[in-house]
Amino acid sequence: MKKNVLIIGAGGVAQVVAHKCAQNNDVLGDIHIASRTLAKCQAMAQSVREKNSLKVPGTVEAHQLDALDVAATKALIEKTGAQIVINVGSPFLNMAVMSACIETGAAYIDTAIHEDPAKVCETPPWYANYEWKRRAECEKAGVTAILGAGFDPGVVNAYAKLAVDDYFDRVDEIDIIDINAGSHGRYFATNFDPEINFREFTGRVWSWQDSKWTENKMFEVRKDWDLPVVGKSQSYLTGHDEVHSISQRLGIPNVRFWMGFGDHYINVFTVLKNLGLLSEHPVRTAEGLEVVPLKVVKAVLPDPASLAPDYTGKTCIGDLVKGVKDGKPREVLIYNVADHKQAYDEVGSQGISYTAGVPAVAAAMLIAGGEWDVGTMANVEDLPPRPFLAVLDRIGLPTWLREGEREERLDFSDSARPAVNG
Amino acid sequence: MKKNVLIIGAGGVAQVVAHKCAQNNDVLGDIHIASRTLAKCQAMAQSVREKNSLKVPGTVEAHQLDALDVAATKALIEKTGAQIVINVGSPFLNMAVMSACIETGAAYIDTAIHEDPAKVCETPPWYANYEWKRRAECEKAGVTAILGAGFDPGVVNAYAKLAVDDYFDRVDEIDIIDINAGSHGRYFATNFDPEINFREFTGRVWSWQDSKWTENKMFEVRKDWDLPVVGKSQSYLTGHDEVHSISQRLGIPNVRFWMGFGDHYINVFTVLKNLGLLSEHPVRTAEGLEVVPLKVVKAVLPDPASLAPDYTGKTCIGDLVKGVKDGKPREVLIYNVADHKQAYDEVGSQGISYTAGVPAVAAAMLIAGGEWDVGTMANVEDLPPRPFLAVLDRIGLPTWLREGEREERLDFSDSARPAVNG
Repeated sequence: MKKNVLIIGAGGVAQVVAHKCAQNNDVLGDIHIASRTLAKCQAMAQSVREKNSLKVPGTVEAHQLDALDVAATKALIEKTGAQIVINVGSPFLNMAVMSACIETGAAYIDTAIHEDPAKVCETPPWYANYEWKRRAECEKAGVTAILGAGFDPGVVNAYAKLAVDDYFDRVDEIDIIDINAGSHGRYFATNFDPEINFREFTGRVWSWQDSKWTENKMFEVRKDWDLPVVGKSQSYLTGHDEVHSISQRLGIPNVRFWMGFGDHYINVFTVLKNLGLLSEHPVRTAEGLEVVPLKVVKAVLPDPASLAPDYTGKTCIGDLVKGVKDGKPREVLIYNVADHKQAYDEVGSQGISYTAGVPAVAAAMLIAGGEWDVGTMANVEDLPPRPFLAVLDRIGLPTWLREGEREERLDFSDSARPAVNG
Repeated sequence: MKKNVLIIGAGGVAQVVAHKCAQNNDVLGDIHIASRTLAKCQAMAQSVREKNSLKVPGTVEAHQLDALDVAATKALIEKTGAQIVINVGSPFLNMAVMSACIETGAAYIDTAIHEDPAKVCETPPWYANYEWKRRAECEKAGVTAILGAGFDPGVVNAYAKLAVDDYFDRVDEIDIIDINAGSHGRYFATNFDPEINFREFTGRVWSWQDSKWTENKMFEVRKDWDLPVVGKSQSYLTGHDEVHSISQRLGIPNVRFWMGFGDHYINVFTVLKNLGLLSEHPVRTAEGLEVVPLKVVKAVLPDPASLAPDYTGKTCIGDLVKGVKDGKPREVLIYNVADHKQAYDEVGSQGISYTAGVPAVAAAMLIAGGEWDVGTMANVEDLPPRPFLAVLDRIGLPTWLREGEREERLDFSDSARPAVNG
């Protein structure tokens, strides 16, 4: 049983996490928000108070923190008494924040893989480059560290484990499909930090096929789907965190990730990439100024958080799982549909931030309740999926299943333990 | 009678000017090349020697110069004994170089209108914002200052004057058409300094129609042409220097400029412009660095000079003139066709630089010979066009005329004075 949460980060996802923690502060206790920019944290705390998000009277405090400074993070964890750290800051921070958790014994949760600013798309499996090297360290310290507990990675990993546990005798392939059918009304914008967004797509695309790593280029392999609610959707084989864990932890021979991209996104991306404007390596202007082009592109694009008020439409993210059950071939789609406007009305962020932030809070609640407080490092598919999906169903992200003509909202109410229900 | 030339600039056009001056050093005397970067000037001097471009034994010297420093430019003019300055550096330098010429009595030639780095597409007529304000100053000092003596502006202004003088009783409209049907083989590149190139297109498009200034947006008005040699060509109404002088100096009621753009150029331009990457105003990165986006775009694009070796194909630039002759409607196209590879083989630059640089040298030769040494400020259409076109015919840019089915190379040999012929 742990309580009191320190949220690190001040973007759209942190905003969701702050609100959702507040809505469940009977379980989670005090809420602390920290990032480089104090004003952003204060604005979030203010938003939580304005929307009356706190379930029971309690603490919401803003702090200034450079989370690359392990000693400073450690001091803040100790000062606040936070036993759970939800790291939704830049993925460049992950290893530093994890160190602070290991040193203090606080549980660690993140939603995206660690990245080195100077590298893109490293050798697979990505988790083996940074996170998994520290598993023994977490185990020795008895520290719970849950990796990639957003939607994708995160919920889609739980869907994969659910399929393995409950729907199949043998899973042959999982296609994770992420379609944002929403519209922000701008000429062009990314749904989260443009720098991180573009870095996902400028390097090699790794997928796990026939039990080995397969390399493609971005926008090389297209696949169209007919999905619930959002309908016909075009997507491209894309590298993504969860491919690097599900393939290794669940032993499934084919794990692919498909991200939806419209032609306009691809055109803008292609122009920027071909010109060299998405490079993470500095160039020198005629005036002698050294500058990383990608950081300038980030500076001219809309702040993703600014898109939320005008965002309309829905997202559909899920796992298309194929395999065998009772000797017969089976295919199920396990998925969630989220609505941008509904997310904004509830927590002041758009749907992409909502789907990424809510699961991290569900994970925190399961650590608070003990079910997921495993005292070591775990990817989401290492943990029991049903309690997680039960909490998600209750706090805003229900799970649906489509099999043939049949579509149903899955019921996990028998998986929800009293402590989690508050 | 003036001699000895100081060339300011070190790009592709300066390279052409240096070679062409060398090929005519019997008329022009010593050749001095100066820019911020001494090494570039030395490389040009070296190229002149390697290609044996000097017609008669003579001087070719490189100098380091910050041409914004009027005193330094004045000192260099005095030290070198240059009586003619060909300014083919950045258009940000024009007024400073003109000051140095007025103070020393040297003749001044440029090929593009003066620009203020902080402004784009100022109020028309552009020449009235900077150049024409100094006409009295030139006149008083007896200094010859020839404005916009490249191809466009420059030769197309002479074509306009030739049409008025020799082909029409009344000219009603001039459409200046600039088509580059060449290919550089790169994903994207500009043919001269990207910063200056893009600045031409990010602001308002001014044209002179029905004797008044008309404002459009870039890529708003398209017109397709069937031109000699290059064939069917798509173009867009574009703002350009010569519209701002021909309209005022020759009293023609319609003067428009059409620049050829392929769909790929327009797509790249549109993406960059809509994202804000062509802005001349600084933005601040998340790390706090102040940077002008356009200067970063310039830094990632190919150096225009680097395109020359692989450039193939031709340019076609000319004036489509409509009016009345002997009581009947008349329409003629006066034009030149240049070849990228031929230009590179001769002077080491591509065709766009060639067409811009050769006319400036022709103007220098006419100042040296006296015909254009008018002792005041002049746009090209203020001066007799036939001697200019005669020199151009001889040094690489012949003039053609198309009227109905008839196409002929115009013969100006009776206009060439002995001094110009060397």
